[in-house]
Amino acid sequence: MSAPAATQALRIDQARLIERLDQLAQIGPIDGGGSCRLALTDDDRRGRDLVVSWMRELGMAVHIDAIGNVFGVRAGTRELPPVMTGSHIDTVRTGGRYDGNLGVIGGLEVVQTLNDAGIETERPIVVAFFTDEEGARFAPDMLGSLVYVGGMALDEALDVRGIDGARLGDELERIGYAGSAPMTTLKPAAFVELHIEQGPVLDAEGLTIGAVEDLQGISWQELTITGQSNHAGTTPMRLRHDAAYAAAAVANFVRQLTREMGGSQVATVGKIDLHPNLINVIAARARLTVDLRNTDETLLQQAEQRLGDFLQQLAKDEGVTIESRQLARFEPVIFDAGVVQRIEAVTSRLGYSQRRITSGAGHDAQMLARICPTAMIFVPSIKGISHNPAEHTEPADLAAGGNVLLHTLLELASQET
Amino acid sequence: MSAPAATQALRIDQARLIERLDQLAQIGPIDGGGSCRLALTDDDRRGRDLVVSWMRELGMAVHIDAIGNVFGVRAGTRELPPVMTGSHIDTVRTGGRYDGNLGVIGGLEVVQTLNDAGIETERPIVVAFFTDEEGARFAPDMLGSLVYVGGMALDEALDVRGIDGARLGDELERIGYAGSAPMTTLKPAAFVELHIEQGPVLDAEGLTIGAVEDLQGISWQELTITGQSNHAGTTPMRLRHDAAYAAAAVANFVRQLTREMGGSQVATVGKIDLHPNLINVIAARARLTVDLRNTDETLLQQAEQRLGDFLQQLAKDEGVTIESRQLARFEPVIFDAGVVQRIEAVTSRLGYSQRRITSGAGHDAQMLARICPTAMIFVPSIKGISHNPAEHTEPADLAAGGNVLLHTLLELASQET
Repeated sequence: MSAPAATQALRIDQARLIERLDQLAQIGPIDGGGSCRLALTDDDRRGRDLVVSWMRELGMAVHIDAIGNVFGVRAGTRELPPVMTGSHIDTVRTGGRYDGNLGVIGGLEVVQTLNDAGIETERPIVVAFFTDEEGARFAPDMLGSLVYVGGMALDEALDVRGIDGARLGDELERIGYAGSAPMTTLKPAAFVELHIEQGPVLDAEGLTIGAVEDLQGISWQELTITGQSNHAGTTPMRLRHDAAYAAAAVANFVRQLTREMGGSQVATVGKIDLHPNLINVIAARARLTVDLRNTDETLLQQAEQRLGDFLQQLAKDEGVTIESRQLARFEPVIFDAGVVQRIEAVTSRLGYSQRRITSGAGHDAQMLARICPTAMIFVPSIKGISHNPAEHTEPADLAAGGNVLLHTLLELASQET
Repeated sequence: MSAPAATQALRIDQARLIERLDQLAQIGPIDGGGSCRLALTDDDRRGRDLVVSWMRELGMAVHIDAIGNVFGVRAGTRELPPVMTGSHIDTVRTGGRYDGNLGVIGGLEVVQTLNDAGIETERPIVVAFFTDEEGARFAPDMLGSLVYVGGMALDEALDVRGIDGARLGDELERIGYAGSAPMTTLKPAAFVELHIEQGPVLDAEGLTIGAVEDLQGISWQELTITGQSNHAGTTPMRLRHDAAYAAAAVANFVRQLTREMGGSQVATVGKIDLHPNLINVIAARARLTVDLRNTDETLLQQAEQRLGDFLQQLAKDEGVTIESRQLARFEPVIFDAGVVQRIEAVTSRLGYSQRRITSGAGHDAQMLARICPTAMIFVPSIKGISHNPAEHTEPADLAAGGNVLLHTLLELASQET
C-alpha cells in the first residue's frame, strides 16, 4: 500500500524520543548513566508507572494481564486485530538506558507522532512492555512474553522464585501489576520490535538499520557442584574434591568449546558462587551458570552434548557431583520474511543504510513470532557494549529506528496486510 | 631430668578433655557438629569468655594483651621464664571442633591434671590462645601470634579491615578483649602446641602421634581482575574481556602448576567473587584469592614467579587488568630439634606410635618459633578432613596428645631445660 505524500513525509521527534529515554533512565540510576530496574522491584514499578502515565497522556487504553504485561492501545478505524510493537523496561543489574526501553518509548513516540499529525489507522496500534525480559532476577528470561503466547503456564510462572528467593506472583501483587486482562484479547496481526543491536556489527560496518531475519537459540543451565571442604594447606592435591576448581574447569571448557566450534557459537559463565568462599578452605560447593547460544539448533544441541560429556568426566576425575538444572531453552527463531522485507523496503525509502542481521540476544519478539508474523529493527550499539552503563546509540540512529518503526507500523496497520 | 614414678604415671582425664571440647563446640554451632566463630565476632567473644572462666576456675592468672591474645598463667616455684602452650579458638566459617581448640583445652587439661595431683613445676606454665589464627575474617592469618612476637606492628594490626569491612581494633574493643598486658612480660622459655594434623598422613599410616619438625611456607594473594561487562549473547568471543573467564584460567593454572612442580607444592583458589555475577552478563570484575604453600622457600618463590608470569600473559591475551595484593607471606619454619626430640622421647616412653611430620597448615607455633625453642604435637585427623564440620579425631588419640603434651611440659618446666 502506498500512503499519501503527507504521510510519507512524516518523521518522529528525535528530541522528544530522547527526552523520554532520559526520564526513564533516571529511575533506578547507577554510576555511569545506566539503570538498575530488576524485574518487579520497586524501581521496576516506578518505571512502569511512568510509562503507563505516558500511555494515558497519549489517550491510549491501558490493559494489564495476569503476568504483568502492559498494553497501551491506540484505537483503529476498523474492528481488526491490532498491530503490536514494544519491548521491555526491566534491566539487568548493570543495565544501559536503551536496551528494551527504546522499543517501548519508540512505540509511544510513533503514537504521539500519529496523534499530532491527526493520522488514523485501520488497525489499532498496541504498544506493549512485557514482564521480566532480562531474566536477571527471575528465570527464564522473556518470561512475560513467553506466558503471553502460551509457552508457559501462568501458574507455573507466578510460582517462579527469584535469585533473592522472592515469589514472582507475590512481587507482582506487591508492586500492583497483577492485572486482569485475558492473555488472548489482543492477539496481534503482526509484531515489530525496535531494539539496539547490543552487538558490534552495525557499528563496525557503519550502518544505521539492521533488518533482523533470525535470532540465536539460547540454552541456560545452572550447575551445582558438590565437593568436600578441606584445609587448603594440608590436603594433598591428589586427595582434593575441589568444587571451585571444577567450576573453573567448566568456564575454561566452554571457552575452549567456542574456539573449536567457531561460527555463531558463544558461551558464557557469568555467575559463580562458592561455599564457604574462604581463602584457606577448599570449596565444598560451587553454583555457576552456563549460557550457550547458536543460530543453528543442531549445533546448539551439539554444544550442550559436549558440555554434558565434559561434566561427566570432570565429576569422575575430581571426585565431585555435578547437578545440572535447565533455566531456559529456546530454539533459534526465523522471523517472518514478509515483515523483514517490509522493514527493508521502508528503510530504503527513508534512505538509511542497512543490512540483514542475526540477533545474538533473546527478545520478546521471538515469543511473539509463535503467534503472528514478526520481525525486529536494530539500531547500532557503539562498540557493541550493552548490559553496561556505557551502552550507547547515537541520537540520529535512535531517531532513524523510530522512523523505520513508524512507517513499518503504518503499513502493517492498513487493512490489506 | 627424670621425674618420680608418681609423676611418670600421671595421665590426663580423657572424659574431661572431651567434655570441654564439646562445651566449646556448642558456641557458634553449625550443621554437622562443627562451629563458626570467626575472629572477634560475638561468637568468638562467647568462646573466649568460656575459656577465660575455665582458666580462672583452675586458679590461673589471666593476662590479655593489646591484640587480644589471652594468657592463663599457672605459677611456678621459681622466678623463671615460663613454658608456654596453647593455640587458638577462632574458626573458619565451616570450622570443626578440634582445630585450635584442642591445643588450648589440652593445655587447660594439663593444668587441671597437675592441680589435682598437687604437682608443682619450677617454671610457670602458661596456656595461651592467640587472636585471629585462621585469618578467615582478618588477613593475615596467625595475626595475634605474629604481633606477639613482634612480626607486625600493633597499630598496623589494629587497622586491618575484615572481609565485612570492620576494623580489627574496633571489633577488639567491641567484644571487650583489647587488653593492657605488655607483649613482652611472658616471653617463654619454650613453646609446645598440640594440634590435630588436619591432613591424612597419621590416619593413613595408623599412627597416634606426629612430632612436627617443620612447617610449610605460605603465600596468600588477592587478585582483582577488571574486564568489561557486556551482553553474553551478542558479544563475539574474540571481542570479550571476561573477568570470570580470567579468574577460571587462574584457578586452572595453579592446579596445573602443582602437577608440574609436584613435591609438597599445593595451591588453592578458595574464594571467587564476580561482578555483576549474572547469568547473561560477561563479568566486569573478579576478585579471587590464591593460596600457595611449599616446605621449600626456593620452590615457593618459584611458584609465585610462575603465577606472576602467567598473570601477565593472561592479562594481555584477554584484554583485562590484573592487580595482585599480598595478604600473607610466611617462609617455611624449621622447629627446634631439642624440643622435637623431647616430644619423640616422651611419646616412646608413653608407648604411642609416632613419626616425624611436616605441617601443611600455618600455626601460631611458627610465630613463637621466632622467639623461643618451639615444636608441635600432632594427633590424627580422620581422612585428613578439617575446616569442615566432619573434622574428627578419635577420643583415645585426643587423650594421647594430651598426655604427650603433659609430660613434655613437665620436662620443659623443670629448671634444667
